[in-house]
Amino acid sequence: MKFGRFEQQGRIFFGSVDGEAVTELDGSPFESYRATAKRYELAALKLLLPFAPVNFYCAGLNYAAHVEWGNKRKGTHTKLPEKADVGYRSLNALIASGESIVIPADSPGPVQFEGELVAVIGKTARHLSEADALNCVLGYTLGNDLSERTWQKQDRTLWRAKNCDTFKPLGPFIATGLDPMNLIISVRVNGQEASRYSTSKMLFSAQHFIARITQYMTLHPGDMIWLGTDEATEPDLKNGDVVEICNDQIGVLRNPVVRAKG
Amino acid sequence: MKFGRFEQQGRIFFGSVDGEAVTELDGSPFESYRATAKRYELAALKLLLPFAPVNFYCAGLNYAAHVEWGNKRKGTHTKLPEKADVGYRSLNALIASGESIVIPADSPGPVQFEGELVAVIGKTARHLSEADALNCVLGYTLGNDLSERTWQKQDRTLWRAKNCDTFKPLGPFIATGLDPMNLIISVRVNGQEASRYSTSKMLFSAQHFIARITQYMTLHPGDMIWLGTDEATEPDLKNGDVVEICNDQIGVLRNPVVRAKG
Repeated sequence: MKFGRFEQQGRIFFGSVDGEAVTELDGSPFESYRATAKRYELAALKLLLPFAPVNFYCAGLNYAAHVEWGNKRKGTHTKLPEKADVGYRSLNALIASGESIVIPADSPGPVQFEGELVAVIGKTARHLSEADALNCVLGYTLGNDLSERTWQKQDRTLWRAKNCDTFKPLGPFIATGLDPMNLIISVRVNGQEASRYSTSKMLFSAQHFIARITQYMTLHPGDMIWLGTDEATEPDLKNGDVVEICNDQIGVLRNPVVRAKG
Repeated sequence: MKFGRFEQQGRIFFGSVDGEAVTELDGSPFESYRATAKRYELAALKLLLPFAPVNFYCAGLNYAAHVEWGNKRKGTHTKLPEKADVGYRSLNALIASGESIVIPADSPGPVQFEGELVAVIGKTARHLSEADALNCVLGYTLGNDLSERTWQKQDRTLWRAKNCDTFKPLGPFIATGLDPMNLIISVRVNGQEASRYSTSKMLFSAQHFIARITQYMTLHPGDMIWLGTDEATEPDLKNGDVVEICNDQIGVLRNPVVRAKG
């Protein structure tokens, strides 16, 4: 099943998505809902973030080939992480599919995509085992962890490297019933495939991250965990590009890129 | 003026606080409100977080004497930051004044307080100058940026060092009309003063942080910026302690400390 969140004439609602058809839901997939008789063409609705996120967790480095590529391109010597330490991103940066990524006028660049699987938490959870960890997940969506590489290298934190307004596209839909460790994520820039990887290559599984977080923190409905990216994240993005993060079962997270005028 | 948020018989409301008296407000200090005729004794109400935070920004290192003390105690060589790079904490960790700080059973310790001034954003803001920066601030409250020093040193991120459930006490009230660069923050542990410093010693001012954030990010009502701590953050906290972050105009953020049983 796929859930989306939509706006029509100022009214916001969840819908179930079946191809190009949307059925309006009464209620929320995070609590309870029932299907209504209202049906829409997907293209006729304004697509919003698929939910309103609360805590924004991320895996950071979670695939070996991405770390190796980064070291090669940037001349760094980043080691593979030895344990699943959790990072943070910020809600201000979120945009829905279709909205524009705005590169700040003073960005030295390069700005690059990072296509990621995102676990969306549906239930309050604490002290889960890895065997039980996925029980708190409502479903999965896609994220683009846009990164300004000069600021990522120079700043003491990842604040503007990763969290400028518009730097965190999220969506388009939440798909349920997926195995998070066996999905293909691909990235297209201007229609050309730029990256393709399997989530089976995660260094630390979704289950491991969730269980580890809940050892110290309560997960709440609406929390999310971005699970990292694999492979190279080229070509560098420039004004006029369109970047798409794709998974067959979730959909396509598509965002144009513009550069702010100084 | 001082604003608090309270619960009475399941009902949540903002109030204005005058000594031990609370006047219930109709509305919110983040939008609009008017005073009602309902008055309460402060002690008769359940005190909540003074507002529901959205984006949780922090200064991290923002006072020289704290960095120097840390280097001395921990044998580190942390340099003073050269620019105001912004950090993040996580909403899961917030607790109100009066609630218990719970040290995880497997914490190697030490766990220490960090008493901080917190700027509470009241208006949407982007591209502010330093001269205009404080115009978006509704008021100021206090935060305790509890820190597990072993995890802070060993982990790749500050996730469990700083963001375990209950590790971010916030409150008790939001005070308006203060000069954030001329306040005395003190910390008491079991009634004994452990630290006292002036916010005039910030390396980067509240104005500078706000202006810099808004160069890249939109600040929203309900966002907050924790502005760092000065001085030593001893004694180490243990089961049964009570830690208080104090400012004459804001109030006392008081939290007991318990250690979770393994």
